[in-house]
Amino acid sequence: MDKPKKRHWKIRLHDVIYEADTRVGKLFDIILLITIIASIILVMLESVKSFDAKYHNFLNISEWVITILFTIEYIARIITVKKPYKYITSFYGIVDLLATIPKYISIIFGGVHALAALRALRLLRIFRILKLARYLGASNTIAKALRASRVKISVFLFAVIIISIILGTIMYLVEGDEAGFKSIPTSVYWCIVTLTTVGYGDISPVTPLGQFIASIVMILGYGIIAVPTGIVSAEYVSQSKASKEQDKDIPLNSKSCVNCIAEKHKDDAEFCYKCGHNLHDE
Amino acid sequence: MDKPKKRHWKIRLHDVIYEADTRVGKLFDIILLITIIASIILVMLESVKSFDAKYHNFLNISEWVITILFTIEYIARIITVKKPYKYITSFYGIVDLLATIPKYISIIFGGVHALAALRALRLLRIFRILKLARYLGASNTIAKALRASRVKISVFLFAVIIISIILGTIMYLVEGDEAGFKSIPTSVYWCIVTLTTVGYGDISPVTPLGQFIASIVMILGYGIIAVPTGIVSAEYVSQSKASKEQDKDIPLNSKSCVNCIAEKHKDDAEFCYKCGHNLHDE
Amino acid sequence: MDKPKKRHWKIRLHDVIYEADTRVGKLFDIILLITIIASIILVMLESVKSFDAKYHNFLNISEWVITILFTIEYIARIITVKKPYKYITSFYGIVDLLATIPKYISIIFGGVHALAALRALRLLRIFRILKLARYLGASNTIAKALRASRVKISVFLFAVIIISIILGTIMYLVEGDEAGFKSIPTSVYWCIVTLTTVGYGDISPVTPLGQFIASIVMILGYGIIAVPTGIVSAEYVSQSKASKEQDKDIPLNSKSCVNCIAEKHKDDAEFCYKCGHNLHDE
Amino acid sequence: MDKPKKRHWKIRLHDVIYEADTRVGKLFDIILLITIIASIILVMLESVKSFDAKYHNFLNISEWVITILFTIEYIARIITVKKPYKYITSFYGIVDLLATIPKYISIIFGGVHALAALRALRLLRIFRILKLARYLGASNTIAKALRASRVKISVFLFAVIIISIILGTIMYLVEGDEAGFKSIPTSVYWCIVTLTTVGYGDISPVTPLGQFIASIVMILGYGIIAVPTGIVSAEYVSQSKASKEQDKDIPLNSKSCVNCIAEKHKDDAEFCYKCGHNLHDE
Repeated sequence: MDKPKKRHWKIRLHDVIYEADTRVGKLFDIILLITIIASIILVMLESVKSFDAKYHNFLNISEWVITILFTIEYIARIITVKKPYKYITSFYGIVDLLATIPKYISIIFGGVHALAALRALRLLRIFRILKLARYLGASNTIAKALRASRVKISVFLFAVIIISIILGTIMYLVEGDEAGFKSIPTSVYWCIVTLTTVGYGDISPVTPLGQFIASIVMILGYGIIAVPTGIVSAEYVSQSKASKEQDKDIPLNSKSCVNCIAEKHKDDAEFCYKCGHNLHDE
Repeated sequence: MDKPKKRHWKIRLHDVIYEADTRVGKLFDIILLITIIASIILVMLESVKSFDAKYHNFLNISEWVITILFTIEYIARIITVKKPYKYITSFYGIVDLLATIPKYISIIFGGVHALAALRALRLLRIFRILKLARYLGASNTIAKALRASRVKISVFLFAVIIISIILGTIMYLVEGDEAGFKSIPTSVYWCIVTLTTVGYGDISPVTPLGQFIASIVMILGYGIIAVPTGIVSAEYVSQSKASKEQDKDIPLNSKSCVNCIAEKHKDDAEFCYKCGHNLHDE
Repeated sequence: MDKPKKRHWKIRLHDVIYEADTRVGKLFDIILLITIIASIILVMLESVKSFDAKYHNFLNISEWVITILFTIEYIARIITVKKPYKYITSFYGIVDLLATIPKYISIIFGGVHALAALRALRLLRIFRILKLARYLGASNTIAKALRASRVKISVFLFAVIIISIILGTIMYLVEGDEAGFKSIPTSVYWCIVTLTTVGYGDISPVTPLGQFIASIVMILGYGIIAVPTGIVSAEYVSQSKASKEQDKDIPLNSKSCVNCIAEKHKDDAEFCYKCGHNLHDE
Repeated sequence: MDKPKKRHWKIRLHDVIYEADTRVGKLFDIILLITIIASIILVMLESVKSFDAKYHNFLNISEWVITILFTIEYIARIITVKKPYKYITSFYGIVDLLATIPKYISIIFGGVHALAALRALRLLRIFRILKLARYLGASNTIAKALRASRVKISVFLFAVIIISIILGTIMYLVEGDEAGFKSIPTSVYWCIVTLTTVGYGDISPVTPLGQFIASIVMILGYGIIAVPTGIVSAEYVSQSKASKEQDKDIPLNSKSCVNCIAEKHKDDAEFCYKCGHNLHDE
């Protein structure tokens, strides 16, 4: 096994993992996608007690298969990538590691299944779903619009929290214990539930004054929901306009006719639309 | 009955069914519209047990009348249309067929009323409402805006699902069985209920930490509802502007050069931008 | 009492009622406004049983005072307006009439208080609130934007109803009686409650499949709420732009310099910015 | 201690409090920020009975520490500011005073802890959160957009209230006592809960007619939520465009004519549009 051949094999593997253009690369992507989704579904089903009771063995074996597949993928990524350390410490590196670890740790502490910490650890597997983020390439515009309006949205959310705390305290004073407004934190929780128009109804005002204030909170929430929407909409409108202007600007170029100085000819124009002079004659 | 006359009769029927310009065609449309709506109301009322008990016979007879009307309409459409096979396999062809079949099948299996499959079959009649889609001509702009932002909205919804699964799992861990977070799927369901600001309240957090996380989920949902709205708004703004610009774009007229048939000259153009031919020479 | 003087008195009364510029006219408006709001509050409080029991006499007398005030206003409007018949049959004429009638009818049928029809009649007084619509002058832009997007919004709402009926029927089939989905109308009601993100929670799915479909309904509702918002936003943007363009267009006028044909001078320009020629010299 | 030195000390203190550029000023800001947030958290925790029972002494001492810190801050601000009276009567002056007072008053009426008025007074401390508003500098655009659409939003909210009162009364008539629609105010409360898509579910229609009307209310609410969003979006779009146009408006430069000091000449202007003076002559 000479050196060049080994490099060749590494490069080929790299292409399979990181490129989606070749047939094998596409196949790898599809298998990975299915494995991730299957894994998520299994983790979710495992938490359903009646299902777990019936198919415990099936779940256990599937989990092992998936863990081994992800382990192979993780090792393959480390081997084939140019800067392994950078990958390992990257977001996806950590996500890929977290996708494999839980099952291995569960062997070590195999007997002590009931531990809450272990239960939490096993649920870490749900973060495998973040592997899917690799496939979310088209989200650029959304991310850009959100990033551009980041400051405004934070200010807005901050204002929402201040309003919630003040109104929550007032409601705590007005409604009191009977209606479920047991403490200020609970009242603030209620206020957020109401302002965001979620409205569970587990806590709801019963006194007329409380209902009156609640009405104000709701109408306020109804009005201020317009703010983040307005921010993001404006950001989008200006972004989509910017990208369109680039497209539109090409047809009408800024060359001027040497004969009559008319400007803004169409891009494919060969003669001046004003004087008929051949635009290619300089 | 000679051949030309028969063709004549078919064409006249075709016009009645497919054109709304003539008086008979308009009458046909109105009768069809009323029949569809009446049919939907009857199917809905049939499911109300107390109503069904009282007016069972009336419902049964009405259903027969409607089924026969729709059968006649279906046959008439097949006869008069130029390419019957294309119609039968089209969206409206299938909808029209589904509108008639259930009652006929229910005779065959008349005795076995209790079958769940039959019950489902009878409810297929609700899809008659899709016949109304024929009258939704003006929905072009909406459909266009939605189609244009299809990819962005899918990416967004995909992100919502990822967030819901992760947050749902965390809440499952934090809240546990007592509060109704019985399993991860249930917790994810709760998370979607909360993120979309629906908020049934059938499941709601009771621990302080759970309420704190729920508050974050709500504010998050409140914030990210801005994203699809922003996307569609921007799409609409640019579309309504595009259609307005076309009106404004009289500068680019539709005269074509008699020499080289190039089109879309600037309105004040006197010479063709493509071949230099004087545009005023005809 | 000669004719001219009487006309004078009528015109003065007309100004008091219909113009808000004079001091008496303003006073009339304020008194009317207070009377309307007081009347609404009294009708609302009357429906609160414990309040009605305590202050029945006060409510009755206040109601008489208000009824008489509104009667005087109604008669005064008829007398002073130029075309009384047109006023009487107009929207505000009917509203003003409805504001006075209920109390008078209640004397005639005074003994039979318990009649449901009478109760409904007495509640007609709540429509006095529509008198306030007179003061909503600034709502023009909103009304214009809504009217301009009327067709699109109707199409949208129509589509929402079709979706609700289909999804409601499916949920009726999936969930059945136990979860509260008693009939198709109830299921459709649930579907509208969910799609609009209201989410009472009086009916909510309990089976896993039902919760899964419900999740789809919610995410759908979350996504399509963007549509009406987008429509109205786009309408607003284009309207506010139109009104701004009018403002902006004045400064740069279309006069051209007679000396150098330069155009788009600032509106207050007195000399050409290109050649220094006095623009007022023609 | 001579006069100039004292002034020096005052100015230095002023810079620490009002400027965030120096290191000490930044430190002061951070300490103040932490104290405010800690104070809010303590007030909230104090309302949780189980927490208060356990840590009553800790809460009491912390409260004293915080009150003294805020008192020092308040006095320092009065001393160092140029116009103390203006500060004291300003929004922040009142907020700063309210942040310190409650604890002092509670000593005076120390024995009568149970008084509702005192309880309310103690909760006044929650308004300390308004001190945070000082750090919300970036909220200008939001405030501007909201202020610009103030009239439109008020009209809109006014219309929402009119609709709520009318629909609430109708629902009161249709549903009656059993379903929770006990009085018109309660029905109006329900209507606001529904229109704003909050939907607690503490009151919800049970009769078919009531559910039908409720469905209309919801779809209405779903439709009209578009209005404030549209208003704010349009405002934002036009604002963000305005700020962009200023950047783009280089054509109008800021050179002023040396002859007549007219400003905002077009960028390619060679002569002043006001006096005809050659702009290149300096």
